[in-house]
Amino acid sequence: MSARRCGVVGATGAVGRELLRILEARDFPVASLRLFASADSVGVRLPFRGQHLAVSAIAPGSLEGLDLAFFCAGANVARVHAPAAARHGCVVIDNSSAFRGDHDVPLVVPEVNGDAIASHRGLLANPNCAATLLATALHPLRAVAGIRSLIVATYQAASGAGRAAMDELLRDTRRRLDGQDPGPPAALPATLGFNVFPHVGALQPGGPSSEESKIRAELRRILAQPDLPIDATCVRVPVLRCHSAAVTVGLDRAVDPAAARALFAGAAGVTMDDGPDGAGYPTPAEYSGADGCGVGRIRASSVLNPGLTFWTCGDQLRKGAALNAVQIAEAL
Amino acid sequence: MSARRCGVVGATGAVGRELLRILEARDFPVASLRLFASADSVGVRLPFRGQHLAVSAIAPGSLEGLDLAFFCAGANVARVHAPAAARHGCVVIDNSSAFRGDHDVPLVVPEVNGDAIASHRGLLANPNCAATLLATALHPLRAVAGIRSLIVATYQAASGAGRAAMDELLRDTRRRLDGQDPGPPAALPATLGFNVFPHVGALQPGGPSSEESKIRAELRRILAQPDLPIDATCVRVPVLRCHSAAVTVGLDRAVDPAAARALFAGAAGVTMDDGPDGAGYPTPAEYSGADGCGVGRIRASSVLNPGLTFWTCGDQLRKGAALNAVQIAEAL
Repeated sequence: MSARRCGVVGATGAVGRELLRILEARDFPVASLRLFASADSVGVRLPFRGQHLAVSAIAPGSLEGLDLAFFCAGANVARVHAPAAARHGCVVIDNSSAFRGDHDVPLVVPEVNGDAIASHRGLLANPNCAATLLATALHPLRAVAGIRSLIVATYQAASGAGRAAMDELLRDTRRRLDGQDPGPPAALPATLGFNVFPHVGALQPGGPSSEESKIRAELRRILAQPDLPIDATCVRVPVLRCHSAAVTVGLDRAVDPAAARALFAGAAGVTMDDGPDGAGYPTPAEYSGADGCGVGRIRASSVLNPGLTFWTCGDQLRKGAALNAVQIAEAL
Repeated sequence: MSARRCGVVGATGAVGRELLRILEARDFPVASLRLFASADSVGVRLPFRGQHLAVSAIAPGSLEGLDLAFFCAGANVARVHAPAAARHGCVVIDNSSAFRGDHDVPLVVPEVNGDAIASHRGLLANPNCAATLLATALHPLRAVAGIRSLIVATYQAASGAGRAAMDELLRDTRRRLDGQDPGPPAALPATLGFNVFPHVGALQPGGPSSEESKIRAELRRILAQPDLPIDATCVRVPVLRCHSAAVTVGLDRAVDPAAARALFAGAAGVTMDDGPDGAGYPTPAEYSGADGCGVGRIRASSVLNPGLTFWTCGDQLRKGAALNAVQIAEAL
C-alpha cells in the first residue's frame, strides 16, 4: 500500500486520539497527517510518531489534497464536510451515524462484510460501536449455522458518549464517594456514578432508544439480513471504556456450546475467553485497550431453540470505533 | 395480629440491618426482639425503637421461646439453627438459599403466591433477591396473558454479595480514581470498581452460574410453572444497592405496551415508571430505599411473539430481601 496523505477530523476526541495511537502502532502508511477539530480545540497539539502535531479548525476546503480522511466527529460535521472531501477525491471513513443508513455508502466490519468495501464511491461508514462488536461476535455463528433472531442487553461504557461523559463519570463518582451531591448531569442523561440507566442516545417515547434502533438497523445491514428480528435494550453502566453485552441468539441449525467455542476460537477479531472448563469470561477491565472482541459464558439457550447464550466484551474506542476504521483503510 | 417475640439472626449484615429498619417503620407488632450474629459481632449494638440492642452469638437453643425468627445469615447457619427453632414452635422466615428447593417449605413473594404461606410447617423461604423482583414484575402479565418463556440479563448491585462487597466496591473505586491498583478482590470474584462481570454466585464450568440457576429454579416455583424456559445471564455492576434487569418475556396471549402499562400501574408491589410518553425508567439511584419494584421502557418484543421487553429495578435489600420477609411475616 502506497503512503497516503491523511487527515483526522475530530482528532481531539476520545475516538480521534485512539485513532492516532492505532495508526502509529499498526505502522499505517502515512505520508503526511493533518489534524482537525472544532474551533475551540485549535492550538491543541497531539503526539504522532515522536512529533506534536497542531490541530486546525475544520473549514470548507480544509481536506483538499488529502487521499484519506478519518472522520471522528459528530454526524453534523460529517454531513457538512465529508461529501465535499469525497468529491475532491479524498476517501472518507466516517465514524458518525450520518451515512450509515445510506445504501450507497458501505457500512463495514472488515471481518464480517469486508467485500462491501470495494463498492464505495468515496464514502465508507464505520458502524455504531455496539453493532460492530456484536457483528464481530455473531459472524462465526452466522457462517456455520445462520442467525434467525437476536436478543441483546448491553452494558455500555461512558466512552460511547465521548470524553465529556468519561470525565463526568469520574467527577460524579468522586463526589458520591465524598458524600457530595453529584449535581445535574450534562454529558449524560442521568448521573452514572454508582448507577445504571436504560437510556443510550435519544429516547423515543414508548419505543426503542436511538442506540437500540441503530443496533437493529446496522446489524441487519452488516449481516445482510434486512428482516432479522432483534430486541435490544441498551444500558449505560459506570465503566470508562469497553462495551459488554449479554446475547441470546436463535440459530437456523443447532450448534452446541463446545462447537461454538471452537468456532469463536478460530474467528478473526474474536478472542475466545471461555476455556474448556467455562470458567473464563471477558471484562471491561481486561479488554480496555485490547483489539479483540472477547466472548465467554457460552451456553445453550432454553428459549431460542436451537440457539446460544453468551457474553461479549470489547473496547468501544478500538474495535468499536478507531480500530475498525483503520482496518477499513488497510483493506481499501 | 398479636405482638410476637421476635429474633433476627444475622442482624449485623446488610439485610439484617435493613430488616430492623423495616420492622420499625412498618410498626410490626414486636413484643420483644433479640438479635443474633456470628461470634465476631458480639457486642455490636443496633438501633431499634429508640434503644440500642446488643447482639448475641447464635448458639444451639438461642431461639427457644421465640414466636418468630428472621434468618438473614448464610445457608449454613440456617441449616444448623432454623429447623431446631421450628421444632420448638418458632416460625422461621429464612432469607438464605438453604430451603428454597425444599418442596415442604413455601417459597413466597406475597403479591405473587401469598396463598402458599398457609401451608408452612414452621419454615418459610424468602426467594433470591433477583427472583423476587422478577416475580413481582412478571406477575401482572402472568395473571392476564400467561408466561411462555423468559430471557433476562441482570445488572446486580454489590449489596447482593453483602456488606463486605459494598465496602470493597467503595474501596476499589476510590483506589482506581486515585490511580492506584485496587489489589486483588476478596468479597467478589473480580474488581468491581468501573467494571462489570457475568459472575454472580459460583460459576459452574460451561453452564449457568449458581445465581442463574437460582433464578430459573425459584421463578419456576414461585410462578408454579415447573417447565418454564428461562435464559438468565447474571452480571454484577458497580452499583451499591438495587438490582436491575432487562427482561424479554414470551406470552401466551398478546398484550400491547399500552395495556401492559395499565396492568403494571394497577399491580401490587410494582411502580409503573414509564409514563404515557414512555420517557421514564427506574434507576438504582432513584430506587435505593424504595419499596416498589419499578418497571419502565415497555416495548413489544420482535423476537418472542407475542411478547414484551421491559426494564425493571428494585432495591435488593428491601423488596429483594428484608421487606419481602416482613411482608411474609405480616401475612402469617
